[in-house]
Amino acid sequence: MPATITPGAPLRFGANYTPATDWMHSWLSLDLDDVRRDFAGLAELGLDHVRVFPLWTVLQPNRTLIRDRAVDDVRAVVDVAAEFGLDASVDVIQGHLSSFDFIPSWLFTWHDKNMFTHPEALSGQVALIERLGAALGDAGNFLGFTTGNETNQFSAAVHPSPWPVTTAEASNWITTLLDAADRSAPAQPHVHSEYDVAWYLDGHGFTPALAARLGAMTTVHSWIFNGTAQRYGGRSTASDRHAEYMIELSRAFAVDPQRMTWLQEVGAPSNCLEPAEMPDFLEATVRHAARTENLWGITWWCSHDVSRALADFPELEYSLGLIDQEATAKPIGRRFAEIIPELRARREAPKRPLGIVIEVDEDDTPVSRGALAPGGPVFEAWLAACADGMDATFVTSQAAADPAALSARGISELVRPDLSAARSYLSQNTVVG
Amino acid sequence: MPATITPGAPLRFGANYTPATDWMHSWLSLDLDDVRRDFAGLAELGLDHVRVFPLWTVLQPNRTLIRDRAVDDVRAVVDVAAEFGLDASVDVIQGHLSSFDFIPSWLFTWHDKNMFTHPEALSGQVALIERLGAALGDAGNFLGFTTGNETNQFSAAVHPSPWPVTTAEASNWITTLLDAADRSAPAQPHVHSEYDVAWYLDGHGFTPALAARLGAMTTVHSWIFNGTAQRYGGRSTASDRHAEYMIELSRAFAVDPQRMTWLQEVGAPSNCLEPAEMPDFLEATVRHAARTENLWGITWWCSHDVSRALADFPELEYSLGLIDQEATAKPIGRRFAEIIPELRARREAPKRPLGIVIEVDEDDTPVSRGALAPGGPVFEAWLAACADGMDATFVTSQAAADPAALSARGISELVRPDLSAARSYLSQNTVVG
Repeated sequence: MPATITPGAPLRFGANYTPATDWMHSWLSLDLDDVRRDFAGLAELGLDHVRVFPLWTVLQPNRTLIRDRAVDDVRAVVDVAAEFGLDASVDVIQGHLSSFDFIPSWLFTWHDKNMFTHPEALSGQVALIERLGAALGDAGNFLGFTTGNETNQFSAAVHPSPWPVTTAEASNWITTLLDAADRSAPAQPHVHSEYDVAWYLDGHGFTPALAARLGAMTTVHSWIFNGTAQRYGGRSTASDRHAEYMIELSRAFAVDPQRMTWLQEVGAPSNCLEPAEMPDFLEATVRHAARTENLWGITWWCSHDVSRALADFPELEYSLGLIDQEATAKPIGRRFAEIIPELRARREAPKRPLGIVIEVDEDDTPVSRGALAPGGPVFEAWLAACADGMDATFVTSQAAADPAALSARGISELVRPDLSAARSYLSQNTVVG
Repeated sequence: MPATITPGAPLRFGANYTPATDWMHSWLSLDLDDVRRDFAGLAELGLDHVRVFPLWTVLQPNRTLIRDRAVDDVRAVVDVAAEFGLDASVDVIQGHLSSFDFIPSWLFTWHDKNMFTHPEALSGQVALIERLGAALGDAGNFLGFTTGNETNQFSAAVHPSPWPVTTAEASNWITTLLDAADRSAPAQPHVHSEYDVAWYLDGHGFTPALAARLGAMTTVHSWIFNGTAQRYGGRSTASDRHAEYMIELSRAFAVDPQRMTWLQEVGAPSNCLEPAEMPDFLEATVRHAARTENLWGITWWCSHDVSRALADFPELEYSLGLIDQEATAKPIGRRFAEIIPELRARREAPKRPLGIVIEVDEDDTPVSRGALAPGGPVFEAWLAACADGMDATFVTSQAAADPAALSARGISELVRPDLSAARSYLSQNTVVG
């Protein structure tokens, strides 16, 4: 399968790869037969790609020690994916995974350096991407890099150990790493990823504009434990359509109206959903997301349940898999397999003539990101449209003032939510996860 | 060689093992031939033991995942030591090494738990020691565990990311881990180690009494960059006899007058000494230390220079080795080799009739640890005795009031330093390292 983004190409379906044995710690002594067993199960579900997460601490334990063995291991996993007809996307800076942080010792405590801004932190990360790019660039099934998984965790004010960044610094970090990816693996499209505080938390350095403008695609990570399920219910419209909502939000900030979006992470968390609800939640989420324009694909979180033999994960992480610890597809995995054949062939996306206006400042940053968050007036306007049977989309206040821009997107009606009621994300939502 | 402590047995000489290739990161993909090359060089110098430092993050990446492979690797290194006639001591909780911290992700940021006090942190560490004890206990050349290298770094107020502890909590942590070591490897003597703020920093939870009373021996870590060399000079009496000073300090706090002391770490740092001074510094340090009573042995820091290919180490770490990056013994290593044969056969330690009194509280904690630090009145009293050609020792104020205790140690004269001039360690010393 070509690792390119072609509008109109079949919709892609994959899984974020959480190794069944030893989780990401399996990188410490990689067993390719374990990987083969895991990938065989995913291929059997009809998936076409995996997103894999090598650990930063294993790849680069010292700033100038990028381990040959660890780089070879990443290539080996990509090659094993090919054995099963799977493409492979690779995240570089992990970084943050499922509540656990993996920060190399050259960046914390006595060596504390802001990973986003310190020149040596930047040059170290560039060197790592370049080494991986050189190792992976010629793999026919390599889909490209994500700079790292939700690395904005490390800069969020809600994080226990923040490295704060301005938007200019966040932009520079993303651009610097994407440039390294483009240099070292020019054939592939490379992206960056953030968790949803980029959309919902005022003052956060990573912004909607960065998400929707830097990199080859916009990536969307949709988690209903962000307050959505708590406020509206796990199987509410708000939850079922939360991924679609984020995708449509992101389209408001894209400069290129044909820009592709990748729903890179979405999952069915047990703190918001009963096990019996999960297959229906998956189907609703996937079907709604599949109705958005220029969607590259959907990558479910995650492939395999975390083993109960591993301690200290948030409870929900033990049951997020499509496949269980006995290598058996779970009901949610079987449901995914059932609907993929039908959805892979794209249908025309519905028109979205109703544009909900997002008030932005001169940098195209929402004046209230809390308004976009669950419970906020922009979010509520979306739900009102849903209740009216309308497929709404979003438009920034700058674009809303530009008839040509509106016309290019087929928007003929505007709704302007009342921001006077907007509150901050964290004051109006109890976030668990 | 028997791994027991027999007073009167030959003095032991060894090195703290810093792998020449990839430093401690070599544990990520251990190459036993690299270890053999390194150990061959140490055996050639006439050393009889090594102290080895597996990484906590590699051994136990998840609280309940103690990796078989990593445990096997530690055993393999101990076995390779035996191939070269070397005994091996193993530190468990690393933890902290040469300015770099290796904290598993289950203990920091989102999972922050005080490693000394949190019940799960304790039970996790106990499990790790028990697994290693089961794996190493029958190795004929296994010398026993140190709970971890200078783990008090993580509780010191000067540390960037402290987990503060009371003395009761520090005591409980040490005891809990030593008990696990004794249970799982009962044939060997097990110890704990602290860096010198236990002796010099008021308010620090780890105390001289804990150092001198818990574990099979007292371990001493002597580093002249603690202010000694800055204040008195790198080749001053204060520096040459700093290790001896700490050993004698420790004897004041021992309950058992026959308790053995292990000079577990001492080195020649380039920020305090010219390269040409290092061999003489080693010889002076070793000869002075060898004159103390009930010394088990001396373990130099370190075996091999850190490669310049590895970034971000404090400058001094690149030149602390006895052996260079070309596997050639350096002048300091050759000097060590020259004096070991003479010193291995113990001679009677000199009498120390002069007791410098350390004022202690009801818990035997010095009322001013700053007074013991470089520049403090207790330290100065030691130097004054040195200048007078006296071999002094130390006695707590509690013991000084007990004629039997004094007599048992052969102390016939007391000096009581004036504590009115005592200042805190950090106010009177600029610590670099």
